[in-house]
Amino acid sequence: MRLCRIMRPDDANIAGNVHGGTILKMIEEAGAIISTRHCNSQKGETCVAALARVERTDFLSPMCIGEVAHVSAEITYTSKHSVEVQVTVMSENILTGARRVTNKAALWYVPLSLKNVDKVLEVPPLVYTRKEQEEEGRKRYEAQKLERMETKWKNGDIMQPSINPDRQTKEPYTVSYSQSTLIHLVGPSDCTLHGFVHGGVTMKLMDEVAGIVAARHCKTNIVTASVDAINFHDKIRKGCVITISGRMTFTSNKSMEIEVLVDADPVALHSQERYRAASAFVTYVSLSKEGKTLPVPQLLVETEEEKKRFEEGKGRYLQMKAKRQAQIDAVPQK
Amino acid sequence: MRLCRIMRPDDANIAGNVHGGTILKMIEEAGAIISTRHCNSQKGETCVAALARVERTDFLSPMCIGEVAHVSAEITYTSKHSVEVQVTVMSENILTGARRVTNKAALWYVPLSLKNVDKVLEVPPLVYTRKEQEEEGRKRYEAQKLERMETKWKNGDIMQPSINPDRQTKEPYTVSYSQSTLIHLVGPSDCTLHGFVHGGVTMKLMDEVAGIVAARHCKTNIVTASVDAINFHDKIRKGCVITISGRMTFTSNKSMEIEVLVDADPVALHSQERYRAASAFVTYVSLSKEGKTLPVPQLLVETEEEKKRFEEGKGRYLQMKAKRQAQIDAVPQK
Amino acid sequence: MRLCRIMRPDDANIAGNVHGGTILKMIEEAGAIISTRHCNSQKGETCVAALARVERTDFLSPMCIGEVAHVSAEITYTSKHSVEVQVTVMSENILTGARRVTNKAALWYVPLSLKNVDKVLEVPPLVYTRKEQEEEGRKRYEAQKLERMETKWKNGDIMQPSINPDRQTKEPYTVSYSQSTLIHLVGPSDCTLHGFVHGGVTMKLMDEVAGIVAARHCKTNIVTASVDAINFHDKIRKGCVITISGRMTFTSNKSMEIEVLVDADPVALHSQERYRAASAFVTYVSLSKEGKTLPVPQLLVETEEEKKRFEEGKGRYLQMKAKRQAQIDAVPQK
Repeated sequence: MRLCRIMRPDDANIAGNVHGGTILKMIEEAGAIISTRHCNSQKGETCVAALARVERTDFLSPMCIGEVAHVSAEITYTSKHSVEVQVTVMSENILTGARRVTNKAALWYVPLSLKNVDKVLEVPPLVYTRKEQEEEGRKRYEAQKLERMETKWKNGDIMQPSINPDRQTKEPYTVSYSQSTLIHLVGPSDCTLHGFVHGGVTMKLMDEVAGIVAARHCKTNIVTASVDAINFHDKIRKGCVITISGRMTFTSNKSMEIEVLVDADPVALHSQERYRAASAFVTYVSLSKEGKTLPVPQLLVETEEEKKRFEEGKGRYLQMKAKRQAQIDAVPQK
Repeated sequence: MRLCRIMRPDDANIAGNVHGGTILKMIEEAGAIISTRHCNSQKGETCVAALARVERTDFLSPMCIGEVAHVSAEITYTSKHSVEVQVTVMSENILTGARRVTNKAALWYVPLSLKNVDKVLEVPPLVYTRKEQEEEGRKRYEAQKLERMETKWKNGDIMQPSINPDRQTKEPYTVSYSQSTLIHLVGPSDCTLHGFVHGGVTMKLMDEVAGIVAARHCKTNIVTASVDAINFHDKIRKGCVITISGRMTFTSNKSMEIEVLVDADPVALHSQERYRAASAFVTYVSLSKEGKTLPVPQLLVETEEEKKRFEEGKGRYLQMKAKRQAQIDAVPQK
Repeated sequence: MRLCRIMRPDDANIAGNVHGGTILKMIEEAGAIISTRHCNSQKGETCVAALARVERTDFLSPMCIGEVAHVSAEITYTSKHSVEVQVTVMSENILTGARRVTNKAALWYVPLSLKNVDKVLEVPPLVYTRKEQEEEGRKRYEAQKLERMETKWKNGDIMQPSINPDRQTKEPYTVSYSQSTLIHLVGPSDCTLHGFVHGGVTMKLMDEVAGIVAARHCKTNIVTASVDAINFHDKIRKGCVITISGRMTFTSNKSMEIEVLVDADPVALHSQERYRAASAFVTYVSLSKEGKTLPVPQLLVETEEEKKRFEEGKGRYLQMKAKRQAQIDAVPQK
């Protein structure tokens, strides 16, 4: 399953770098097609695959306007009620012929009945070519399940407050100076046949607000470096207003971590309260005109809460750094 | 209630100034969200707020691509059946931090029942912090009510004629009844790296205008059946205004042929004259709800030219029919 | 080379059939990618492939919202200066697995130098697997060359008049020279949950047509200065065709007033007549590259009606000027 498209001016920032959100949206479209097709491959109730989780995604190399994005998706594991899709994104410069891998992502989908969207159906089992594939997939499945439960607990018990901007009076480099909120009224083209917002649309908005926070903080050309695992706690329906808020939590010498919260508000439906639909940490880096990473101004933390979030961000940063070092060390020296 | 968004290339003209219309659209989106939310804040029939009037709006300062637009909306008055929303738009240059107020607007909304859109519901009363606010609001309400009545009188009694009044006076099924013209200002997303319009964009507009002509003629669900060979005589550059005109040339029992002409007008380039960029014949058929082709009302030709074009269209139709028959006959009988 | 995409509500008409134009646009995107890639496959001057001709295209079967369109493109012939691309479009219902061929198309591209867009470069020769392929391709090449020359002759010698030829014959700076009409078929994204057009969408189109009128009149960079109060007389429903017409009514030394009328035409609803949905006066100013307001060419009024409208415009202009002066005077001098 492969999807490709030319990158246009509206897909990119003013420096010509394609928004991370545009790429996330294409990744999710490919994932939705392949998993919906798989889940309907056997006779039975018709269903649509809904995005439940995206694993941490790194942006290995920026993509530019005029390049062709190739998005290849493959089903790599199925449990009783979920499908894992692995996606690789490659950019192609059709003038020079140069190709680069820009992203690798893993997404989890759940099949929902078209008749009753609260009913999760069974997934037809995948046929593996090697036995190890199934075993490795099961491990990834168990790991994500554990992590989803942890996040659920965190978001459920201690519901994080939304971010409220009163930023005009604030000093540069403080958290409240760059914090930003974006409101979006869900339209028909944002939605699946079911009337639910495509996961990719939500991710694009999350990246957009994180990009505004990062640009306000360092006032340079900024690009997405990675997006943390995102859990989609609940579906967002057509006609909702979604509020996407971003605040900076941590800066290293050359990177910024931004927390993004997505709240859905079913304005025209009395039945339902506003709820947290998703949340994630997005990491941005700042680039010079030549495309080199620049130093980032240090974040000024003021309140106790901000200090706590900074320390937690630092923890995530050091852990990821150690993980990468371990991967490098694991490669046998030639 | 606050809405913010980065201004993109497609939001602006070629000089980089954001279109006034883009800003008006954001203002209205903020107004619609806040007033719909207010009108549903008490238990009762669910409703949606529909725009009834926008007060005069000045554009105090131009906004540019790459700037962030902040649109703040506030409910400032409610009558029994209407809501006044005041909106302020500010542009922020996120690189320099500079902010300017670019617009102030006042909009009036009316709550319509979701069950019966012709029923206007009651608005929950606003709580004012100062007594003068209510009094001032009432004055604005009375003033706009008076002005609306005056306009209604003007438009109702002495209905202003349209600017191109031809169509209305024409008989159904004539060429001039369904003939249509579409103007498109070429934007960045329509163009290649070279700054030329993608051929596909032109073809999409050609099909769009042909579809409007066909729908006006037979007032049913119509779909494209075929598009003639199209030659692209000359490139269309960024910043051009393209005029796409369509007129019906021929009807058979179950198909309509529409001629489409594309003219490019390099408004901002003094050097060049308007020129014909492409032309084609598009054939449409009319479909029933079950997807079957329906009979098409016969085209009424009036002038000598129309008769000539009808005969030429008949020629193309018969030629194509013969060609298809020949293809069918060429298949060996089993 | 393959391109695929889910069909969304905005790609289709209200009956759910994908617009032929949407499919033509995807076909051309696939053709542009594969031919640009081929033309740059050998060392030499960098180029971009520009669409020169599309052969007759039949739409064999309608495509629907929610289906996946697969667009496969292949280079089938190259002459010294042109590339033939054959494209097949297939629709896939990912719920049932059903696939149908919906289109077959053939396109001709010409490589233009990126340094000098008027220079046509040479195409690297294609390697054929069977000798007949080259021979058949050459026949198609000769046939289209002949047909192009015939069309050129028709368009060149006997240049067909435009369908609304008024404008071309008019003198610059007259009302009819710059007067413009825009037709818009209301799509799903233009509408609220109710199926009514968002007021903001109408206002954006009103500003767009006024901007075209202003640009045609003064051929410079123009920006919206103000929009008059707008009353929304009646709702516009999904599936309507809206006609937005603009004509210049008045010019002062540095501003232009344009009257915009919006008429809604419920083409697919027999029950209702065309009606006036909104109207307004929009004021534009002309800007230099440095952002200073420029003088505006005086409007030439010809008919009695135009003179009357000019005087009324002057009245509004003077009234607004006096109002602003009064506001300035009202501010206490420090």
